[in-house]
Amino acid sequence: MPILRQDITTRSWTIIATERAKRPHDFVKDQKEVLELPEYDPQCPFCPGNEHIAPPEVFSITGSDGRWKIRVVPNKFPALVKSQRSGERLRWRNGPYIEMPGEGIHEVVIECPQHSRTIATMDLAQVETVVTTYRERFLTIDSSATNQMIIIFRNQGEGAGTSLLHPHSQIVATPIVPVDVRRRLEEAQRYYDDNGTCVYCDIIRYEMSTKERLVESNHGFVVICPFASTVPFEMWILPIRHEASFGQLSDAEIPLLAHSLRSSLTRLHKLLGNPDYNYVVRSAPHYTAMEPHFHWHIQILPRLTKTAGFEIGSGMAINVTLPEEAASSLREVKVE
Amino acid sequence: MPILRQDITTRSWTIIATERAKRPHDFVKDQKEVLELPEYDPQCPFCPGNEHIAPPEVFSITGSDGRWKIRVVPNKFPALVKSQRSGERLRWRNGPYIEMPGEGIHEVVIECPQHSRTIATMDLAQVETVVTTYRERFLTIDSSATNQMIIIFRNQGEGAGTSLLHPHSQIVATPIVPVDVRRRLEEAQRYYDDNGTCVYCDIIRYEMSTKERLVESNHGFVVICPFASTVPFEMWILPIRHEASFGQLSDAEIPLLAHSLRSSLTRLHKLLGNPDYNYVVRSAPHYTAMEPHFHWHIQILPRLTKTAGFEIGSGMAINVTLPEEAASSLREVKVE
Repeated sequence: MPILRQDITTRSWTIIATERAKRPHDFVKDQKEVLELPEYDPQCPFCPGNEHIAPPEVFSITGSDGRWKIRVVPNKFPALVKSQRSGERLRWRNGPYIEMPGEGIHEVVIECPQHSRTIATMDLAQVETVVTTYRERFLTIDSSATNQMIIIFRNQGEGAGTSLLHPHSQIVATPIVPVDVRRRLEEAQRYYDDNGTCVYCDIIRYEMSTKERLVESNHGFVVICPFASTVPFEMWILPIRHEASFGQLSDAEIPLLAHSLRSSLTRLHKLLGNPDYNYVVRSAPHYTAMEPHFHWHIQILPRLTKTAGFEIGSGMAINVTLPEEAASSLREVKVE
Repeated sequence: MPILRQDITTRSWTIIATERAKRPHDFVKDQKEVLELPEYDPQCPFCPGNEHIAPPEVFSITGSDGRWKIRVVPNKFPALVKSQRSGERLRWRNGPYIEMPGEGIHEVVIECPQHSRTIATMDLAQVETVVTTYRERFLTIDSSATNQMIIIFRNQGEGAGTSLLHPHSQIVATPIVPVDVRRRLEEAQRYYDDNGTCVYCDIIRYEMSTKERLVESNHGFVVICPFASTVPFEMWILPIRHEASFGQLSDAEIPLLAHSLRSSLTRLHKLLGNPDYNYVVRSAPHYTAMEPHFHWHIQILPRLTKTAGFEIGSGMAINVTLPEEAASSLREVKVE
């Protein structure tokens, strides 16, 4: 019989449809679908030598050889654009509705010069550079109060919504706190009110003790398949130290996070043959960064199944893979 | 500059990225991608003659020739299964989490005997049969209080998550009211508290007066591209008479709804070359069917673009087509 599981961080229910359960190999991509990319593609706007195609960079880290190791550029087709005004934010009525200008930030993190890499196949030092860059951009963007919410995300593969193959992440800052984010904060606050503890800290403690859904952990981070995983092989990377905002990531935690991120994505890469996925950094927004209720984390969502009308109509997910089995398969993958 | 628009029924913001705007023909499928299906496929489990493949039907309407015009069968691979217990519902704790059995209803509406049709290409009488069947099943399923929420939906095309091509819809009843649904009810109630009117009634009144986003209307229903459309060519079909629950659909409204549904999907079909889409019936759940705040409607979501990390992380949509332009293009399509 299927089972309903509640995500206690959102009160959303997931249907775990065990009768429809698939084994990991059912999800493995056809070998012919796994693209073998060249190290360098002269047509790629993100490859070295084509720096002039993208808008001027806002951040970069250069190696001892004088070449860039990572670059951040404004998105050439931004969803939100930098405000030209100063001062107060603007909203207006349009009949019964409300509108505001699409002001914000939309940046692209070009993660490394090599066209063919992905987080799973970069060396650890390069993933540290990526994490460092995330934090630097987060802190800079967060220092302006008009950037209310910062979303860092990565789309891997066409099925995850990317058109450019060169390894990259994106950073968007919105001028409002999205209602979906606000609700996560409210649920965390409600849990804190009821229990006097952080819901994410409680999850970490419980998952570390049972180990059923634990994928791996180090001194700074724990990787789990969440209890109410919405998709097969969903993973959360959580800092063990309670921190509301991603901007609170410490220098000492950077290599530990880089290790967890690279290692968990390597497990996914090896187990399922380089599947498409999205990951998002879920952080407290600017104005609640100092509140004790939220706990930032990274959510990794492989794109192995399609959402359809039921998910749209209910907001509930149907997951065909038991999270305990996903975690067990991921744990068994050998990583360096 | 992009613009942010708030959906006043959910408080969600959509980014309308006008710089990325596409014209309707950019979305039109390649002709070679538009499948020409046979009227009858002997391999199809839903085609006449293969009735024994599906579980025994729970409802059907038979024509004067003694053959079925529509059939409803339990889903062979249900996401939720009928409860074998009687009496109270069951939930249990699993560490800090909550679980419950996956009990409910999952039915398939086989909309017509012809393998090749879709709502846009059925005759009007057949679409009336579909709408009648929706209401009959809704009323039957809604009569049991254990079925807290009924979702009627249709997945058209592989991109919309369907694997079977024979025209069909699905009906799922869940043993809980999903948090996403609860929030829509809360927003409608809050609007009612603030304004003394139904938010959907106000939207209908405004859209009928400006006509900017109006696709079509008849004496019973209005079809609009919503102000904060989350995807290109999104449409809502709303009953003009205020009704919280889909079960309140009157006999007189059935042909009017059939007309609106068929006509709006025909516009989409002709304009974009039979695009993939989902539609969902958004109704008040069982226990609030008599409350005045909600207003049922059908949401049609063409699957022309992909969601990615930003949408996952923020819960916000990026829509590349201005709803006013979508409505204008849809209005211009000639329908019988």
